[in-house]
Amino acid sequence: MTVANAGEFGLIARITRRLPSGPATLLGPGDDAAVIAAPDRRVVASTDVLVDGRHFRRDWSSAEDVGHRAAAANLADIAAMGAVPTALLVALCAPPDLPTVWAEELADGLGAEAASAGAAVVGGDLSASPTLTIAVTALGDLEGRAPVTRAGARPGDVVAVAGRLGHAAAGYTVLCRGFRTPKVLVDAHRRPEVRYAAGPEAAGLGATAMIDVSDGLLADLGHVATASGVGIDLRKDAFPLPAQMRDAAAALGVDPYTWLLAGGDDHALAATFPAGTELPEHWLAVGQVRESPAPEVTVDGRQFGDGAGGWDHFR
Amino acid sequence: MTVANAGEFGLIARITRRLPSGPATLLGPGDDAAVIAAPDRRVVASTDVLVDGRHFRRDWSSAEDVGHRAAAANLADIAAMGAVPTALLVALCAPPDLPTVWAEELADGLGAEAASAGAAVVGGDLSASPTLTIAVTALGDLEGRAPVTRAGARPGDVVAVAGRLGHAAAGYTVLCRGFRTPKVLVDAHRRPEVRYAAGPEAAGLGATAMIDVSDGLLADLGHVATASGVGIDLRKDAFPLPAQMRDAAAALGVDPYTWLLAGGDDHALAATFPAGTELPEHWLAVGQVRESPAPEVTVDGRQFGDGAGGWDHFR
Repeated sequence: MTVANAGEFGLIARITRRLPSGPATLLGPGDDAAVIAAPDRRVVASTDVLVDGRHFRRDWSSAEDVGHRAAAANLADIAAMGAVPTALLVALCAPPDLPTVWAEELADGLGAEAASAGAAVVGGDLSASPTLTIAVTALGDLEGRAPVTRAGARPGDVVAVAGRLGHAAAGYTVLCRGFRTPKVLVDAHRRPEVRYAAGPEAAGLGATAMIDVSDGLLADLGHVATASGVGIDLRKDAFPLPAQMRDAAAALGVDPYTWLLAGGDDHALAATFPAGTELPEHWLAVGQVRESPAPEVTVDGRQFGDGAGGWDHFR
Repeated sequence: MTVANAGEFGLIARITRRLPSGPATLLGPGDDAAVIAAPDRRVVASTDVLVDGRHFRRDWSSAEDVGHRAAAANLADIAAMGAVPTALLVALCAPPDLPTVWAEELADGLGAEAASAGAAVVGGDLSASPTLTIAVTALGDLEGRAPVTRAGARPGDVVAVAGRLGHAAAGYTVLCRGFRTPKVLVDAHRRPEVRYAAGPEAAGLGATAMIDVSDGLLADLGHVATASGVGIDLRKDAFPLPAQMRDAAAALGVDPYTWLLAGGDDHALAATFPAGTELPEHWLAVGQVRESPAPEVTVDGRQFGDGAGGWDHFR
């Protein structure tokens, strides 16, 4: 059965049936709008869109994988403000010949990833389109804390990361070269493993700035450097190089630090903390904030690679 | 200049520069997420997506028109819950050859329509895509009121509408037949005029159910009838037929009541009120809720037209 056979309202009924409710869901899908608890009297909100053939490929990722990834990309943005995710809204643009089961499994992935962060899918929209597109909006609650923006990093702060780096990028390279292993890397491209709880934790520890690593650590710390008006220097030897990544890099003739430092889509959290902050083990100190006449991110005091290390969605 | 020339970050900078802030905007565009005031401790949220060639045509509507319409479709959903709109988030998927000025004027339309409802664009995302797509999420505040759902209509309630009906559908038919006038109808297709304030007002007056008319009055009241488990009967002579609509219908050989009763996209608000509620002049009483063995919407006691009168986005 395709989405055109099921029809708009039939498909909505099939999808919403599969979506679990969450603790903040006061009124879920089915009305003009959802109602979500916002106990803090402020709500944190972010939108990210995934386009077929650009952000995912249906021959490389299952619908459930895509659901996990679409949800994770948005939930990580909420965590990176120091907030706890509460809700997702999802707009799905689907070609009429899309199998209904694909949309259903997408919903399963979205729902499961949201639940893993304590949130739930509360609403959405459905339209026909020649291009399969998934636009997700995530909401979250600050629990009384100040939001951690990109603008608060100060010279002397420690730079630390929570979560995996370079895995999704390595998996993407592996898939591009026609391989299907190492599984840990390919799976990381398909489904990020995000440490959502590390975001509110960092806020509680006094993080001065925080960002979700979606474009690559260098590019994303570049946004922090620009917003904060500082320089950031990373120590290359602070980044452990997993054996499977090292081996895959050698086999493919790639510098694995390109993956670690410039690869996006793992949605690690990168934050700056006042010097002397006692960091839990899953926060890995990788560098330092310093004064700089112009915002820049360096590795061992020098520019890394071509200095770009980012991702422009139009290039 | 095209969006590909401007690049993702260049285009984001150009767009956000044009967007006014709003009273509920605590942290606007530029960080991982926005922060919006939610004084009620609950937030109302809704998502709607517009796809080029399906929801709008670039040769019929300007970018600013499309911005107004995309915002209005979402803001009306918030008003239909009895809430006051506070914020919009916008995901834009653009073909790389889209002129930058189109995206900028879209932002102008989105910002202006949001401002007209007391809200502001607080964040978004940008991606390349072969299909121009605009996904908007609107947030709102209930100001302490209970949300007005579709499920509370009771036999004996009065059915009333605030805002225009059939204008956008008539304008669409006019454009489809190759005409550009009457202007009032064509303009209504391009930019809906929504009575946002009538939503919270209806909630304050004790509305038992409310919906935004986006698929057509019969179809949308059908959702109310289903959710509430009632029948709804409309009086055809309660609907004034504007002279220009009557004349256009005669010229095109169309029954104008098809536009009034089954045409969508004006985003009027339709609500049910307890009998005897004193309604302000801009709420037009058009029918009554009655007991019914099965949910249905009738006109003068009979089924109208083929009984479908709706819009399925996959058909």
